[in-house]
Amino acid sequence: MLTTRILDGICHLTLTSAKSRNALSLELIRGLTKTLNEIHDDQSIRVVVLGAEGPAFCSGHNLKEMNAAREACEVNGHASKEAQELKQTFEECSKMMEKIINLNQPVIAKVNGVATAAGCQLVATCDLAYASPKSLFCTPGVNIGLFCTTPGVALGRAVGRKNAMHMLLTGDMVHAPEAADMGLINEVVEEDELDAHVNDAASLIASKSPTAIRIGKQAFYRQMDHNVHDAYNYGSTVMWQNIMAEDARHGIQAFLSKQPPKWQS
Amino acid sequence: MLTTRILDGICHLTLTSAKSRNALSLELIRGLTKTLNEIHDDQSIRVVVLGAEGPAFCSGHNLKEMNAAREACEVNGHASKEAQELKQTFEECSKMMEKIINLNQPVIAKVNGVATAAGCQLVATCDLAYASPKSLFCTPGVNIGLFCTTPGVALGRAVGRKNAMHMLLTGDMVHAPEAADMGLINEVVEEDELDAHVNDAASLIASKSPTAIRIGKQAFYRQMDHNVHDAYNYGSTVMWQNIMAEDARHGIQAFLSKQPPKWQS
Amino acid sequence: MLTTRILDGICHLTLTSAKSRNALSLELIRGLTKTLNEIHDDQSIRVVVLGAEGPAFCSGHNLKEMNAAREACEVNGHASKEAQELKQTFEECSKMMEKIINLNQPVIAKVNGVATAAGCQLVATCDLAYASPKSLFCTPGVNIGLFCTTPGVALGRAVGRKNAMHMLLTGDMVHAPEAADMGLINEVVEEDELDAHVNDAASLIASKSPTAIRIGKQAFYRQMDHNVHDAYNYGSTVMWQNIMAEDARHGIQAFLSKQPPKWQS
Repeated sequence: MLTTRILDGICHLTLTSAKSRNALSLELIRGLTKTLNEIHDDQSIRVVVLGAEGPAFCSGHNLKEMNAAREACEVNGHASKEAQELKQTFEECSKMMEKIINLNQPVIAKVNGVATAAGCQLVATCDLAYASPKSLFCTPGVNIGLFCTTPGVALGRAVGRKNAMHMLLTGDMVHAPEAADMGLINEVVEEDELDAHVNDAASLIASKSPTAIRIGKQAFYRQMDHNVHDAYNYGSTVMWQNIMAEDARHGIQAFLSKQPPKWQS
Repeated sequence: MLTTRILDGICHLTLTSAKSRNALSLELIRGLTKTLNEIHDDQSIRVVVLGAEGPAFCSGHNLKEMNAAREACEVNGHASKEAQELKQTFEECSKMMEKIINLNQPVIAKVNGVATAAGCQLVATCDLAYASPKSLFCTPGVNIGLFCTTPGVALGRAVGRKNAMHMLLTGDMVHAPEAADMGLINEVVEEDELDAHVNDAASLIASKSPTAIRIGKQAFYRQMDHNVHDAYNYGSTVMWQNIMAEDARHGIQAFLSKQPPKWQS
Repeated sequence: MLTTRILDGICHLTLTSAKSRNALSLELIRGLTKTLNEIHDDQSIRVVVLGAEGPAFCSGHNLKEMNAAREACEVNGHASKEAQELKQTFEECSKMMEKIINLNQPVIAKVNGVATAAGCQLVATCDLAYASPKSLFCTPGVNIGLFCTTPGVALGRAVGRKNAMHMLLTGDMVHAPEAADMGLINEVVEEDELDAHVNDAASLIASKSPTAIRIGKQAFYRQMDHNVHDAYNYGSTVMWQNIMAEDARHGIQAFLSKQPPKWQS
């Protein structure tokens, strides 16, 4: 369902349920959340690469599971265990996306296939995303009567409103180059170069000050939710706290003496 | 001034005052608002196509009307009937734009000409927009001493800040391809293919679950006004309500049994 | 450190510390703030062009100064004069950026070189920006353990989140064409045409109603911090105030009688 492999400060987190197209069952959502919580507190991990096995990066929610839960709801009522689980699936999926945003480490999506619905949301949520030319992106909830509302939270903030509405209202497939144009992914990379390209990006980030990355990633998303004035008040305080940390002391001195930095954190 | 033609669930709403370049007189604003309110409650309408006759899609406010009202204000004072009407023109125009955002049905702008000031705002406000290569877009209020502040509300959220400021500060005309690049429109379509292209997009959306579209369109714009955490809390609740609706039940089952859905709503 | 030259309503504000790569020392931040305050109240100035001498447009904070202040902090404590000054550097730099946003006149960045960290923030903050092909942009705080959090306030609002995160997490240099694609600058202009191009843009803006520009620039950034409904309520009120001003009266009448406007303000 999910594997992690840590190498040189990079945690390769891979979805391995190729047969179910890496659908976000409640079990997988919980597994991902648990793994992300462990990564969050692991200071040896500098950056996370989220990849997937099989032709689909992630196909979104598990519709079979949802259908069964919904049918049980109808029999047993909205207060039933099944109803609670169905509700929790949406809530826990949203919390998992928020966990990626709030994670101490940057998360890079490595996409080599189809990313659908909550799978497309996953790509939009990651800090960075690279995809092979054959990768496709869509939010097809309108086809099954279930609008991709929560995917729209991430999508609407990653791409323009007109692009988001096109994807959400039509369910159309978007090809990788168009996804790059609209800001859903950072770059299209040839399939046989994708692993190396993502590794290079991850290694580059892993070589930077972990303290600065941790402080800065958290502050970036937080200030984006403020108005500009509050964002600057908050940001100025963060800068002051950041410069008083050991990594900034060392980093600035290394820079001034033209030495490569060696981070303590 | 305004015609509506309903065909296969698509409401073709057309501005017909070619001579006045479809200027948004108070009468037209009220006519559009009334028509949009009627469409909102008409469940047979799945999607709206907003088009226009003549060389101008819409030239914004009616300056002759505004000038007359302003002169009357100077004679009769700020508490006069004319002053109230002038104030109401801005307020009702803004409410009409908000009505498009909150409309149950998606609105597609079909642009084949010049869209100026509040006319450009109209394009920016629609959920989707397609334009012919000869179409032009501008917010030229600075040329008459009346900055396009309310058009800037829609423009600033559709295109980047630098693009918006370029248009607002200079009044420069933007050509259709540039408008597509900056996210003001979805796509440039050859003039002789524009009707068919927009009809195809409208028909595609009309084939989706109306319940999902109604719930999802409203939720999209609402969550975009929240911070990410509140957006997800709200979005998760909407997903739960959406999946308990009949269309989702049917849609998911149709998908799992590989049948085309037949929406009840 | 800083020169101003006023010609035909255009204030050419030039950073002249080529040797220090126009680093934003506390002295320069204060000098810029003072000059901006003076420009703000000078009705003869219609637009500001912010340029720079030397190979760097602006290299961000002065790291030597910061390092010295930080070392003094460690000796003398967080309540010491040096600690206060270090804190103030961040706060006053943010206030200077906010002053550009709130300035009565539009500010155009003319970039012909490297814009780094708070220097890149300066470009992102200006209302418009034009750059020569050799210009480079980056936010390399992660290289010295000090994440570019405050630059991220401006960057995150000018470019997409994925683009901002790429720059902030990697410190990578972005070339001018890519900066234009992502919305950090308006246009790439050949180096030998840059002065003329920026002058043309500045002259165009200087020819517009100063009252409309002042009202409209302020209103634009303010409404962008509101939700859509509040933005429209606020914007409608601004439109009403704007149309009752002398420039709008004259401008609309000039337009209707096909005469070029002559602004009183």
